[in-house]
Order: sequence, then C-alpha cells, then structure tokens
Amino acid sequence: MSSFDFTPVLAQGLPPPAVKWSGFPRYNFVGGNNDADQVPVDRLVAASNAVLMREGATLATYGLNSGPLGYRPLREFLVGKLKRDAGIVCTIDEILITSGSLQGLDLVNGLLLSPGDTVLIEQECYQGSITRLTRRGVNVIGIPLDDDGMRTDAVAAALKELKSKNIRPKYIYTIPTVQNPTGTIMSEQRRRELLKLSEDYGVPIFEDDCYADLIWSGKRPPAIYAMDQNGGVIHIGSFSKSVAPALRVGYIVAKWDVLSRILSIKTDAGSGALEQMVLAEFCAAHFADHVPKLTKGLRVKLDAMMESLEEQFGTSAEFDDPKGGIFLWVKLPDNVDTMKLYQAALAAGIAINPGTEWSVNAAHSKSRLRLCFASPSVTDIREGIAALADVCRREFGVPTRSANIEKTARA
Amino acid sequence: MSSFDFTPVLAQGLPPPAVKWSGFPRYNFVGGNNDADQVPVDRLVAASNAVLMREGATLATYGLNSGPLGYRPLREFLVGKLKRDAGIVCTIDEILITSGSLQGLDLVNGLLLSPGDTVLIEQECYQGSITRLTRRGVNVIGIPLDDDGMRTDAVAAALKELKSKNIRPKYIYTIPTVQNPTGTIMSEQRRRELLKLSEDYGVPIFEDDCYADLIWSGKRPPAIYAMDQNGGVIHIGSFSKSVAPALRVGYIVAKWDVLSRILSIKTDAGSGALEQMVLAEFCAAHFADHVPKLTKGLRVKLDAMMESLEEQFGTSAEFDDPKGGIFLWVKLPDNVDTMKLYQAALAAGIAINPGTEWSVNAAHSKSRLRLCFASPSVTDIREGIAALADVCRREFGVPTRSANIEKTARA
Repeated sequence: MSSFDFTPVLAQGLPPPAVKWSGFPRYNFVGGNNDADQVPVDRLVAASNAVLMREGATLATYGLNSGPLGYRPLREFLVGKLKRDAGIVCTIDEILITSGSLQGLDLVNGLLLSPGDTVLIEQECYQGSITRLTRRGVNVIGIPLDDDGMRTDAVAAALKELKSKNIRPKYIYTIPTVQNPTGTIMSEQRRRELLKLSEDYGVPIFEDDCYADLIWSGKRPPAIYAMDQNGGVIHIGSFSKSVAPALRVGYIVAKWDVLSRILSIKTDAGSGALEQMVLAEFCAAHFADHVPKLTKGLRVKLDAMMESLEEQFGTSAEFDDPKGGIFLWVKLPDNVDTMKLYQAALAAGIAINPGTEWSVNAAHSKSRLRLCFASPSVTDIREGIAALADVCRREFGVPTRSANIEKTARA
Repeated sequence: MSSFDFTPVLAQGLPPPAVKWSGFPRYNFVGGNNDADQVPVDRLVAASNAVLMREGATLATYGLNSGPLGYRPLREFLVGKLKRDAGIVCTIDEILITSGSLQGLDLVNGLLLSPGDTVLIEQECYQGSITRLTRRGVNVIGIPLDDDGMRTDAVAAALKELKSKNIRPKYIYTIPTVQNPTGTIMSEQRRRELLKLSEDYGVPIFEDDCYADLIWSGKRPPAIYAMDQNGGVIHIGSFSKSVAPALRVGYIVAKWDVLSRILSIKTDAGSGALEQMVLAEFCAAHFADHVPKLTKGLRVKLDAMMESLEEQFGTSAEFDDPKGGIFLWVKLPDNVDTMKLYQAALAAGIAINPGTEWSVNAAHSKSRLRLCFASPSVTDIREGIAALADVCRREFGVPTRSANIEKTARA
C-alpha cells in the first residue's frame, strides 16, 4: 500500500478497481474459454517451428515485413477463408489484423463514437460491447430479437423515430451469426432488410462475426458484409473461438477509405507477431479440418448441458437448442432474479452470467442467464448444473425437489 | 471505394487517414527496429517447443491459468530481473503484462488524464508519447534536458508556477535511463530531487524505462521506482528493445492500489499468450546472456554511424556519444530545417526523424534529427549517411563538399 495519494490525480469516470484474481471457480460457466483438449498443440508446435526457422529474423522489425495491417500470410489466409465461409470478397488491403476482436470493437468505436452519440444494438448483447458503449457515454437503443435474430421491423421503427428527433445513430451493431447470448442466426431476408435500412438512413452496420465459425452444420448465411453493395458495413472476426482465445488475434474487414482511418487510430505498433505468424502457418494447413472437429466436440458438451438442465431444472429452465456457439441462453421462472442467483452460485463455486449483464432490457433479462459450455468437462457440466439447481432451489424455491430426485435415481 | 458516406458518422477529432504502406525505404534510420541478425531464433524455437508441449492446452483459457495480470512465469522472471538490473523490489501482483510498453502508456494515460489536464514531460521526447497527449487534449509543459537528463531545477520552477495558478499536473513523465531521443541517463542525484519534488507537490512520476536494458557498460542507476519510498511512481518497461520489437510485450510496475485501477481499464481480455509464454521460457534461461551480446553488436553499429557522420558531415553534425540505446540525436547547422530535410531525404529513399516531431520545443529542435542505427547493416549505415549528406548539401549547402571528397579519398 502506498502513502502517496493518487485520488486527486485520477481521470474522471474511472470504473471501480479490479479485485485480485484468485483462480477460476470450481464450476466455470462464464467467459469465452474453449475446450482445452481441442487445442491443436502438436500442430501449433509444428507451425511455430516452421515459421520461426523460416522468418524468425523478421521479429526484429515492427510489423515484420508486412506493414501496419498485419502479417501478410495471415491476411492472405483470411481472404480465402472469408470467401469460402462467409462469401466475402476482399483484398489483403481491406483486412486489418487486431489483438482480438475486442481491439476491433475499440477501434470501430474510436472511429465512429463521441460522447452523447446514439447507437442501435441487439437488446440481448455481449456484455463487453455494452460496457464499452456505457464507458464512452453513448446512448444505447436495444432492438429485440426473435428466432431469426435482430427484428428489422423494430430497427425500422427506431430509425424512423430517431430521424423525427433529428438524431442519426452512429451504427447498427449486430452479432448476426450465432448471436451472443441468444445463439440465433439472422436470416438472409433480415440481412437484406437491414442493409436496406442502413442505406435508407445512412447508418452503417457494424457486423461482429466472432462466433460465426462455430456452427454445427458448418453452413451459415453470407455475412452482411458480403451481401452489401454499398460499402456501409464494417465486419470484425476472431480466431479466439475457432482456435484459442488466449492467442488474441482478430481482424477488421472494411473498405480502404474506412480502414485507413481505423489504421490511423491503431497506435500500438502492430499486434503480436508470434501469434500472427503461428496462426497463419497453422491455419493455412489445418483450419478447414480443425473447425469441424472442434464443433463436433462442442456439440457433445452442449448436449450434456441441455440434458443436465432438463434433468435438474425440468420445465423450470427454458431454452432453444442453438445452432452453434459456446453458450446457452436460459430462461428461469419469473421469480428468479439471476443477479441474486449469480451471487449465491459464486459463493458455492459456480460462475454464471446473470441476464441483466448481457442485455439492455432489465425486465426481459432479469430471470435469464447465460451458461458457457466449451471449457468445463462433461462431468463438470453435469455436477455444476446439479449444484446450480441446488442453489436456485434454496434461494428461489425452483426447481422443485422432484427433478433432482428423478435425476439421482437415474444417475 | 465505397459509395456509402461515412463522413457524417465519424467521431470528432480523428487524425488524418493512414497512407498505404509501400515497404521500408532503402535506408531506414527510423523506428525502434532492431538487429535482425541478433534475434535469437534457435532459442526462441526451443522455448516455443518446450512451453507449448508443456502448457499448450492452457491456450483454451483467457489469461492462461495466470489471471488478468499476465502469464505468471513471465511476471516471476520480471521480479528477478527488475531486482537485479533496476533495484526494484516488487511482487508478481505488482506487475501487469501489457501489449508492448505502448499499451502501458495508454493505460497510465487512461488512469490519470482527462482533457484539459496538464503534464510535465522532457522537452525532447518520444514522438508517440507526445502525440498521445495531444490527442487526449492535454497541456504539455516541456522540461529541458542536459547531460544528466531532465533538469530538476526547471521541474521545480514549473511546479511552483503551476501551483501559483492552482494547477496540479497529473504526472511528470520521464525516460530517465537512455532518454529518447537524447540518449542521456538521469543521474542518481536528479532522481532523488525528482522524487522530492513529486512528494512535495503530490504529483506522481511516470517512469518509462523501455530502453534501459541497452547500456554499453551493462550498469545503470537504480530505477526511480526503486528509489521511491512513497508509492508515487508508476514504472513501465518493454522486451521490444532487449529481445524483439515485433513481439509486443511490455509491462507496468505499480503498487496494487494503482495497478488494480489500471487493470480495470485494461479490457482486452489479456495480452497475447504465445508471446508471453515463449518470452518467459526464453528469458528465464537466456536473457542475462542475450542482452550483453546484443548491446555489443549495437555498439558496433553506433560506431559506424558516428564515424560516417564525422566523415560525411564533418563539424556540421554535432552529437554526444550515447551510453546506450538504438538512436543518435544529432544537431545540424542552424540553417538546416530537418522537417524539410526529412521530406527531401525520404524522396531519396532515406528515412530520418525530424527533430520537431521528437520535441515540444520547435525552435530548439528545428535543426536536430534522430537517427536509429540498430536495424540497418553497417554497410547501409555508411551508404545511407553518405546519401543523407548529399541531400542535405543539395538542400541547405551543408556539409560543404570537402567532407565528402575527403571521405571518398579514404574509401
């Protein structure tokens, strides 16, 4: 502890201090962590050896020999991958490698947002996106979702109303392909409608596709960026979900007139070279094989989680079977306040995401929660959901005892 | 080119767009690039193999198993390294791994600065630090330097004057150990005086030690952080200069009450794991041997640059022999405007840093320039400085022809 008093020199509006990290909880159903058994360690080692032996000396230079957009072979891989998977036609000069898609969020926000601005986002939304907007002093308008994703009729109504107040929102932010947390995939029809609204109102679309690789069927609609004729879409993606989250490699796809402005506010002297080099080497050879293997394993874990919820919570837990991803969005009975459940569960060694942290509609999300299933083992999923049911029963009287007895009999 | 018009939705106060990168100039005397021949490629490969085989599966988890402060073995290495080299006594909970020391700059600025604030910095200063302050709308007061570094008499005068105006500056920023661009090392006496002023006025010291490993003698004064009894110093450092700039690994050292607030604004889900892991593995075994070997090679390049300047510019180029680092701060005759020289030189394939970009005192720096010597080969240094002399002679009439003829006769 210092005797120097920093209080008078702190910046305005800082968040509260972080608490000291004390390890992961016993049952960890939060965070974008992935399946440790599926990290392709041997192939990453081989990739690392090959690329370092060949090009290691270039580490002496910021940006390697690729310039500020990022390691060229990784951008070359992405040109092919984005075409094949998302239908995006772009050049290596329209891709900026970022330190995770989170830096992509920060850069796009930095490009477009000033305090007091307004944006449209999906009502249920990635917590990190919501907190970033709050910290920037931006007004957020939440658009409800249904099975086809963000409701474009509600987008149209919001744009119309804002226009009547002379407000032009800075962007429409969407996670259209495996939406976080709802897991929905926006239909092609909706994507077309959203593009039309973007064009009509002069409001760009900010497409966050960071979970889009993790779809059980392997088939996805074209990216909104791919369907756009107009240049009004900025697209971000990530390798965190498809290869490994600790690597911190993502990317922005945009037309050069936009990307050149983003690049001028990216003042970090480039993203980590080793991660880019190893990923590029690995992905060129193995990405297309790796992802279906990974999603197959994730589906097994999702099945374990859905089965456990059915066993432990019975009809008290409602959810749709998501088409991909690493999380499940669950509705509990109306009397359950998941923020209180979150606190009680954490004390019992179980981490969950309370709904209100993943939504801008407190009333809608109060009895909902997000459960991540990629990282814990199937055994931990079963034990953890049973333990969560116990906590929930103790705190809120649901699920009723019968579900648990039934489960015990079966086990 | 897009037809969508982004102009109405851009944030306020953006810098101009970046220009497309077209490769490095023929003679590149700018940037913190290092000697490609000295990247320890074989040892990095060995480190990568060892650490990935042992811990590769942890890449599935954000922050590995180390929490948000960064990869624990790297912080453990730093505890020992900082003690041995800089006299800093700290724990692994007082070190935050960052994505280069540039992220350290951004985080400390984010902790302390709001628009309209005032800071004290060295009059000649790293360009990236100056531009960051400008972009944040912060008032910068430049403090002159002499051979012993930042002049504490001028710091005292500035603090006194500001106090009379009821202004408390947010920090005193210094690069005390191999100052950028002057190459000076602040004396211990000055460090003590600076700490006294910091305490008297309640203004923290922001110590940027990112070049401090590169000292020819291997000996350096204790860090200001190490001499502080009061907790009013924040220290940042980097592996960019000592191992490889493309790796993007730096660190912040601060007491936990400060670090916990910095951590709460570091929302990037951790710095790149692979870089941290490979660096930790490499450094634990080889850092202490690697650095003296590196600096020996850098000294050879510096000698080549100083000799070339003497040969090509004669008495027209004035400079001190720096005690370490990767750059030389050079004074040309008063009639030379190095901003114009920079433009003419770039057209001839020679990149230099004009003095006014590395200073907040335009009159003092107008005829000065910074030359980086770590990356180009000795041959390129000799050819490039000769070419620079030709451009300077053509544009400004100095150096006079004789120096070049003399050189040609010798060559």
